[in-house]
Amino acid sequence: MRATVMFGAGDVRIENVPDAGLIEPTDALVTVTRACICGSDLWPYKTMERSETARVMGHEAIGVVEAVGADVRSIKVGDLVIMPFAFSDGTCEFCHEGLQTSCVHGGFFGTVEIAGAQAEAVRIPQADGTLFVLPVGKDDALMPSLLTLSDVMGTGHHAAVAARVGPGKTVAVVGDGAVGLCGVIAARRLGAERIIILGRHADRIALAREFGATEVVSERGDEAVERVRELTGGFGVHSVLECVGLEQSVLTAVSIARPGGAVGRVGVPQDETMPASQPSFYNNVSVSGGPAPVRAYIEELLPDVLEGRIEPGKVFDRVVGLDEVPDGYRAMNEREALKVMVEP
Amino acid sequence: MRATVMFGAGDVRIENVPDAGLIEPTDALVTVTRACICGSDLWPYKTMERSETARVMGHEAIGVVEAVGADVRSIKVGDLVIMPFAFSDGTCEFCHEGLQTSCVHGGFFGTVEIAGAQAEAVRIPQADGTLFVLPVGKDDALMPSLLTLSDVMGTGHHAAVAARVGPGKTVAVVGDGAVGLCGVIAARRLGAERIIILGRHADRIALAREFGATEVVSERGDEAVERVRELTGGFGVHSVLECVGLEQSVLTAVSIARPGGAVGRVGVPQDETMPASQPSFYNNVSVSGGPAPVRAYIEELLPDVLEGRIEPGKVFDRVVGLDEVPDGYRAMNEREALKVMVEP
Repeated sequence: MRATVMFGAGDVRIENVPDAGLIEPTDALVTVTRACICGSDLWPYKTMERSETARVMGHEAIGVVEAVGADVRSIKVGDLVIMPFAFSDGTCEFCHEGLQTSCVHGGFFGTVEIAGAQAEAVRIPQADGTLFVLPVGKDDALMPSLLTLSDVMGTGHHAAVAARVGPGKTVAVVGDGAVGLCGVIAARRLGAERIIILGRHADRIALAREFGATEVVSERGDEAVERVRELTGGFGVHSVLECVGLEQSVLTAVSIARPGGAVGRVGVPQDETMPASQPSFYNNVSVSGGPAPVRAYIEELLPDVLEGRIEPGKVFDRVVGLDEVPDGYRAMNEREALKVMVEP
Repeated sequence: MRATVMFGAGDVRIENVPDAGLIEPTDALVTVTRACICGSDLWPYKTMERSETARVMGHEAIGVVEAVGADVRSIKVGDLVIMPFAFSDGTCEFCHEGLQTSCVHGGFFGTVEIAGAQAEAVRIPQADGTLFVLPVGKDDALMPSLLTLSDVMGTGHHAAVAARVGPGKTVAVVGDGAVGLCGVIAARRLGAERIIILGRHADRIALAREFGATEVVSERGDEAVERVRELTGGFGVHSVLECVGLEQSVLTAVSIARPGGAVGRVGVPQDETMPASQPSFYNNVSVSGGPAPVRAYIEELLPDVLEGRIEPGKVFDRVVGLDEVPDGYRAMNEREALKVMVEP
């Protein structure tokens, strides 16, 4: 079958690889009908060493179940399913607590160990716990928004939950990528009164406003901190969604939180240490978040997608076939595209 | 009057200083009947540069109100009061939210700006918001435990709250100083099922067990992490109370938290960055805490002290007069004393 393989920084190709198939009795085999390229795929695209093992990329998908292992109970051949970016057994104590990204039998798609979904088909470990069956057809018009439930919309929601967004709160979103924009949707959905987006790309800012952002801060660094303070009576915001992962963005996030506020991190941290240990301490600012248990959030978010109350699928501004995936990486990396959907 | 003045590392003396008195109409003047030396006083005792301005030390006290300013409403001459380590107006939005340590008119005792309470008397800014009137006499037998409500017991409670301690939780306390020991009391009081104390001083560990610690880990660093994991089925604990503030202790705290767990920091951080940014992210471990709003906690904790359900005053293992305060610093710094009470 054909799949997207990354060999090193800047070197991603469509290759013929061995067909995906069942290995464990708890597996399912899914033919991918929609996948996409994630902002986090750009980290290896920028930095992967050639000496590392090549990876079949992609951790967000919707597809049709082609086969299931002998122990699979709740997933049937023919089901249209969402594949969250992490697989999980659905039965361990972390899954029961709604933290599927720490499942004791879990893992992540698109890694060296587990092939990804920017491909014709994908093997799904722990199919019963991982997959979510959709009540629509595979070419439903809502497909782009449904696809975001595999990662970016659930991740934006996780940032908002970790940042304790709620009715009446003033919220800031650091980062205007697809996750940040979904964070705006999540913050509005959870009742935020004001939503300040920190970003500087006109088209993304326009979408942020459409999603519910009430104010825009296009400055960076200290100037951004000063501007957010000006907008908030000098104190900062209750909730900050950190959707980038760089030292500077985390520093900004902590610095614009008001005393007693909360930072929800979902940008994958690129540094071993976290800045601003003392400011976060002296201001009693909590820092939480991490890989989003999107599997847990699908049930909560799905009705809003199905009934059109949220439209996270608008983050896709380009659709490509499998052959064009490498160019999709290039376009996202050069910020020519916001988020690329793949129809294999 | 006589007061404890720190001039530099290791140089703390009892000096004659100008009498404390009312300055603002919102002030009270308090004659100190009990004060104490805090573990955090040992940071300047270890590191203060001689070039820094000398400080009248002490931020924990009980005393009798001698005079009040014209605008003081709720505090009367003759009241016996607790002085929390921070002063606060009681009316700003942060005070209303219970975060008095971020009061917009607040500050901290024992700093260059505001003289401390290891002295015969102390000026209390924002007396109405700051002081808590006690319903007992000034020589009540409960005085040691009541004195802990000015800092260490409230701080241990804050760590437990920040670490989301609750019924059935497994908790670890990093640090066997007075705050850590009060953290054990707080964790037990909030319903923790298991409380693991990390420390290695036999007398302190014995007190921790008396306060409710169920297990002891005397290893340090990686070995401590391994031992806690062994004790917790490999996963770590739900809640970690970080009561030290060093890079190593914070690293240990994050490393022994289970996925989805919480670290409550009350040890004053000595470093600009926080370690283990990536582990805390990948495990969705929240890090919060900071200077405890002990003023907010007095009302909650006081009944338990008055009715003898908790006895945090047991952390005091030495009582000195004002003249012996410098030797009290030495004794605490050399770990000869756990916590020193001062009767000026």
